[in-house]
Amino acid sequence: MKPNKKSALEEKKPLVSPETTSSAAIQKIKEKRAKKTNPEHLVRQILAGNITALSQAITLVESKNNLHLKTANHIINNCLPHSGNSIRIGITGVPGVGKSTFIEALGNYLTTKNHRVAVLAVDPSSSITKGSILGDKTRMEDLVKNENAFIRPSASGDSLGGVAQHTRESIVLCEAAGYDVIIVETVGVGQSETAVHSMVDFFLLLKLAGAGDELQGIKRGIMEMADTIAINKADGDNLKAAKLAKVEFNRALHLYPLKVSRWQPKVVLCSALKNEGISDIWNVVKLYISQTKENNSFSDKRKEQNTYWFLQTINDALKQEFYSNSNIEIELQKRILQIENSKISPFTAARDLLQLYYSSKEI
Amino acid sequence: MKPNKKSALEEKKPLVSPETTSSAAIQKIKEKRAKKTNPEHLVRQILAGNITALSQAITLVESKNNLHLKTANHIINNCLPHSGNSIRIGITGVPGVGKSTFIEALGNYLTTKNHRVAVLAVDPSSSITKGSILGDKTRMEDLVKNENAFIRPSASGDSLGGVAQHTRESIVLCEAAGYDVIIVETVGVGQSETAVHSMVDFFLLLKLAGAGDELQGIKRGIMEMADTIAINKADGDNLKAAKLAKVEFNRALHLYPLKVSRWQPKVVLCSALKNEGISDIWNVVKLYISQTKENNSFSDKRKEQNTYWFLQTINDALKQEFYSNSNIEIELQKRILQIENSKISPFTAARDLLQLYYSSKEI
Repeated sequence: MKPNKKSALEEKKPLVSPETTSSAAIQKIKEKRAKKTNPEHLVRQILAGNITALSQAITLVESKNNLHLKTANHIINNCLPHSGNSIRIGITGVPGVGKSTFIEALGNYLTTKNHRVAVLAVDPSSSITKGSILGDKTRMEDLVKNENAFIRPSASGDSLGGVAQHTRESIVLCEAAGYDVIIVETVGVGQSETAVHSMVDFFLLLKLAGAGDELQGIKRGIMEMADTIAINKADGDNLKAAKLAKVEFNRALHLYPLKVSRWQPKVVLCSALKNEGISDIWNVVKLYISQTKENNSFSDKRKEQNTYWFLQTINDALKQEFYSNSNIEIELQKRILQIENSKISPFTAARDLLQLYYSSKEI
Repeated sequence: MKPNKKSALEEKKPLVSPETTSSAAIQKIKEKRAKKTNPEHLVRQILAGNITALSQAITLVESKNNLHLKTANHIINNCLPHSGNSIRIGITGVPGVGKSTFIEALGNYLTTKNHRVAVLAVDPSSSITKGSILGDKTRMEDLVKNENAFIRPSASGDSLGGVAQHTRESIVLCEAAGYDVIIVETVGVGQSETAVHSMVDFFLLLKLAGAGDELQGIKRGIMEMADTIAINKADGDNLKAAKLAKVEFNRALHLYPLKVSRWQPKVVLCSALKNEGISDIWNVVKLYISQTKENNSFSDKRKEQNTYWFLQTINDALKQEFYSNSNIEIELQKRILQIENSKISPFTAARDLLQLYYSSKEI
């Protein structure tokens, strides 16, 4: 390109990217790379604990390219026999509760105990906010430099179903790479908690002490999922309130029917910032694991979770197929209007649409 | 038939039903009746408050005969514009809590206040136990004789989805017949509560006071659904324990995040047997209705529920179609075994089955 005349009055032409980085070219390079990926080689590298290979495989899992997905499937199925030997911990809590600080404290503590820790995230909101959790790795400054820790933010631009599936598959890869504690972070939007709860062994709810109104922040049903509630920032002036909150939560947790695992959820105080109470929480996790392994609910739960993801994936796909059908899309809105105006019963409307769908499939 | 020889030593031949009641004959009669049903006439009779016509229409709704279902659809859609003007109350509680006695007391009380009360049930277990709730109408001796009350037990031999759908449709018919309070009874099996919760305006959980272990009886998540908890049998020696339970439940309910309706669930004492506290509960229901009508959450919830049933019916049918496919049935078990033995990831297995399903549909 020829430069413009050098004058401050002259406006610069907008920058044009050189041709080699045009989107078509990028696509070409990506396809070449995809073809070049040798899955057997990647699997070997992952099993050897190579972080670059692990990251590369997770990128394949998250890809929308069919060739990538095929490779990803192959890698996952080959890593499967080497997976499962970890403790999977889900962590949730409203923004401001100190999740990042807590995970950093827990992660660093675990590496001093010779554990290798992987931190993943299920955060569908990141597609809008461009990564509200884990996106900014600098929030875990120490852990990110720790050679026994692997941090991977949630991929953006995906539905909850997509993010959850990718995270579930990434767990397998991390375990095959030798990480023996997997932490899955999520943020209180109800459905993402359910997804994370269905992929971890132990579910931790982070809370703050307060006048009670902080409870408004959590969505219904989440407290029932918790295997333990950790009240964070239990230090200094907060300590008294935290101790009161502990009593109250304990009482509330006892009102719930006992879980299948027969585990009675605990309430623990901690201060992630001051590194206090972290070992207590880890002791609770260890107690939980040994208790549930002893009564077999640990392995039962994992089996159930696998079947859950199997059926869930099928059910999601069936719905996706139906609702994205162009005939259905138009009729659906019409029927909802008719239902709202009491012109047709929801069941008749459903039967009509199903008839339309299956007759269109038979051609 | 010729009688046997009259001797006490001679065994009687087993009774053989006369031919006219053979199953083929019954089928014939049923079909004749179905043909004879004049839906326009039935709708007129229902709107006039004719109980026989109402019962007949509900039987059509519950039928598995396609001709009946078509007639039922027609009737429901014609009753729809005359429905909706009622208060729909869901009632649940573990066996032994006194549900029948409570519903009888509430129902009789309401008829003295010039209400017309319909009592329906969602009880999929009745297909096994042949009607564990409402089946034995004699348990509501007075209410069943009350001319302003209509009691209809759950049809047996159906899945939860089926029972729930029939009850949801029966609500429309009862409302069209002039019943302005609809009570839907269910029994604590978790999923049936969710179904009932999705078809009523107000959800009441019946409890007993006790040492705390009675809480084990309710399934997880049910306490969160309750708009009010009524502690029954709060009389005599139980009164003190009931008052303590009230404090405890109130505290627990305050720990939950506020509902969309901004209604703070209440705890009320009652003794259905002694007819105490029934009017208090009705006052709570009235307060709830006026409060939610004022902030529009009443109508918003009903709209949401209609859409819920519309989509739920579609989603159930899509799954039904998939899982009853003969190719799928065989492969499904194989894949679950492979998943359990870590031979294949749940996601790969799901993708394989979906591919098989859609390719078989395209022929």
